[in-house]
Amino acid sequence: MPQPNGKLKLRDLARLTGHTVGTVSKALHGKPGLSLDTRERILKAAKETGYIGNALAGSLRSGTTKTVAIILGDISNPLFSIFAKQLIAGLKDSGYSAILLNTDENSLEEERAIVTALSRNVDGVFICPTQQGSANMQLLKHNEVPFVLIGRHFDDDSFDGVCFDDREGGRLAAEHLLSLGHREILLLTGPDYISSARERKQGFFDAFRALRLSPDPKLIREVDIATDAAVHAVEHAVGEGARFTAVCAFSDYVAWQVIYALNGLGLSVPGDVSVIGFDNIQSDIRLPVPLSTVGCDKRAFGRRAVELLLGRIENPSAPREQVRLKTSLVARGTTAPLG
Amino acid sequence: MPQPNGKLKLRDLARLTGHTVGTVSKALHGKPGLSLDTRERILKAAKETGYIGNALAGSLRSGTTKTVAIILGDISNPLFSIFAKQLIAGLKDSGYSAILLNTDENSLEEERAIVTALSRNVDGVFICPTQQGSANMQLLKHNEVPFVLIGRHFDDDSFDGVCFDDREGGRLAAEHLLSLGHREILLLTGPDYISSARERKQGFFDAFRALRLSPDPKLIREVDIATDAAVHAVEHAVGEGARFTAVCAFSDYVAWQVIYALNGLGLSVPGDVSVIGFDNIQSDIRLPVPLSTVGCDKRAFGRRAVELLLGRIENPSAPREQVRLKTSLVARGTTAPLG
Repeated sequence: MPQPNGKLKLRDLARLTGHTVGTVSKALHGKPGLSLDTRERILKAAKETGYIGNALAGSLRSGTTKTVAIILGDISNPLFSIFAKQLIAGLKDSGYSAILLNTDENSLEEERAIVTALSRNVDGVFICPTQQGSANMQLLKHNEVPFVLIGRHFDDDSFDGVCFDDREGGRLAAEHLLSLGHREILLLTGPDYISSARERKQGFFDAFRALRLSPDPKLIREVDIATDAAVHAVEHAVGEGARFTAVCAFSDYVAWQVIYALNGLGLSVPGDVSVIGFDNIQSDIRLPVPLSTVGCDKRAFGRRAVELLLGRIENPSAPREQVRLKTSLVARGTTAPLG
Repeated sequence: MPQPNGKLKLRDLARLTGHTVGTVSKALHGKPGLSLDTRERILKAAKETGYIGNALAGSLRSGTTKTVAIILGDISNPLFSIFAKQLIAGLKDSGYSAILLNTDENSLEEERAIVTALSRNVDGVFICPTQQGSANMQLLKHNEVPFVLIGRHFDDDSFDGVCFDDREGGRLAAEHLLSLGHREILLLTGPDYISSARERKQGFFDAFRALRLSPDPKLIREVDIATDAAVHAVEHAVGEGARFTAVCAFSDYVAWQVIYALNGLGLSVPGDVSVIGFDNIQSDIRLPVPLSTVGCDKRAFGRRAVELLLGRIENPSAPREQVRLKTSLVARGTTAPLG
C-alpha cells in the first residue's frame, strides 16, 4: 500500500490531478471502477510528487517497515509454497509485504536468512525452524523482533507458534494401515530434532501400542526430507530384501518419491505396497495421484499464523500462544487391505 | 547482508567484541567456522550498536534498497514456485532480497502488486505479466524501475525478458502426439492474450500443417490456467461426447488436472487417452506421474533472468534484451501409440 510522506496528503494529490479524493484513493489502492488512463495518470502523479515511494522515509519515522520475512525450508516444496501463498494473502489485507527466504533446512543458511531479515528491519518473522539447535531462535529473541514458528515447535513451547497435531496425525496414518491388516510397515521419517518428524513417529508407535504390537526397528528409517533421498531409501530397502507391505511417509512430498521409486522397481501401489503421506497437498493442487494422506487445514493455518504475528507486533508483552491444529485421515487410492 | 551505517566500521565492531575483523565478518555473513556462542555474541553486538539494521538508512543515502519484487501468477503453482526459488537463489549471491507478490492472473491485482513494489522503492521487478492489456507495464516503465518480463512477452518485444521458445515447444508436443498416430487431439490452451498460450497453440497448428492436416476446431478449448478449470473442461468434453484420443495441455499443471479428470471418469492414461504437458515439473519434484512433457531449463531461466535484471539496474540505458530459451521433448509414460 502507498504510504504518504507526511507532507503531501490525499487531497493535495486530488487537487493536483483534478480528480476527487475518492477517485485518487481508488487508483492508489487498485480498486475497480476507473479507466486505465485515469488510474495511470494518478499513479504517475503520485510517484512524481513522492506520494508513492516513501515507504522508506515513512519507515524511518515510524520505526516500522510493513514488511515481514517468511523463512521456509524450500519454496519449491509444494507444502511450503501453499503456506507462503496463505501467509502472503493474509498479510496483504493488513498492508504488509513479505520477503521470502529459504533455509534449505540448513542451520547456517537459516542464520543468514535471519541476519538478512534483521538488516532489513522487518516488523516480524514467520519461520519454519531447521531445529538444528535453538541458537538461531535466540538470535531472533535477543533482537526483539516478533516472530511466529510455523509447522514446528520447540519442546519448551517458549515461542509463539502454529503447527499441526503431528502426534495425532502420525497415529491416524499408522492406525489406517494397521486397520487394513498391514504389520510390516516401513516408516520413512525425518530427523528426530524436527518436532513434526519426532511427533509423527511417536504417533506411529502409539498406534502399534494400542494393538499391543511394536513396529520392526529395522523398518524405521530416517531420510532427508528436503531432497529426493526417499527415492534412494526405498530402492535401498527393496534392494537389501527388507520385507514391508506398506509405507508410512513423513509427508506427501516423501510419499510421491516412494511411489515413484516403487513404480521404478516394478512394484504397484497399492497392489504390492500401500503408501500413505501427510499434508494433503491434493486439497490445493489437483494431482492425478489419489494419495491417501493425513489432512490439515492450510487456510486455517495461514489465518492463525498471520493473526498471531500481527497480534504480537501490536502487543509485544501479550502471553505466548501455541496453536495446535487438528488433523484428519484422508483415505484415497494408494492404501488397500493386505491381500 | 548487513550494511554498515556509514559511521561504525567492521574494525570498530571487532574492537568492541574482542574478535578479529575476519571473525566478525564471518559471523555477519553466516560463514562457517565459528562457535554458535561467538557468532551470537557478535551478531548481538552488531544489532545493539546499530551496525545491522540500518539497511533502511543506507537505502535512503544510496537510493537503492537491495530489494526486488517478484510478481507471479500464483506462488502455489509449482512452476512459479520453482521459478521463485531460482530467482531468490540467484539474487542472494548479489545481496538482494525478494518481495513476493501474487497477481492471481488478475490485472487489478497485478496493478496493486506493482504499486506495492513501487511504494517500497524496489531496485527492480521480475514480472510474469497477466497480459490483460499493457497499461501495467507502462506503469512500471513510467516509474523508471528496471524490470524483466518472465515467461511471457509482448508482441513488440519492447521490454527486457526471458521466456521459452513456446512456439517450438508447442510444435514438439503436437508432433509427438501426431507421430504416435493421434489425430483427434484435444488442445487445452490458455487465453490468446497470454503469449505462451498463443504461441504454443501456433506451434500445435504448425505440427498439423507440416503433415498437411488441420486440427478439429471443436477440439481447441480455452481454459483458465490458474485454477482447476481443466478438470471441468475435460468432464464437459467427455460428457458432450467429444471424440479425442489425446490431450495436449497448456502446462503440466493443466495436464495433471486432465489425468485426474480422465481417471475420475474411468478412462485410463495412456490406455484410453494420451496426455502431454509442458514445463517438466518432474525435473524438480519427483512426482509419481510419468508425465510426457516439453522440457525447459529452469536453472538457465533463473540465471539469465537475474543477469538481465542486475545488468539493467547497473546500466539503465543498455540495449533491450529478449532471451528465448530452447525447449525439448520429454516422452514418458502418459503418451502411447494410437492402438
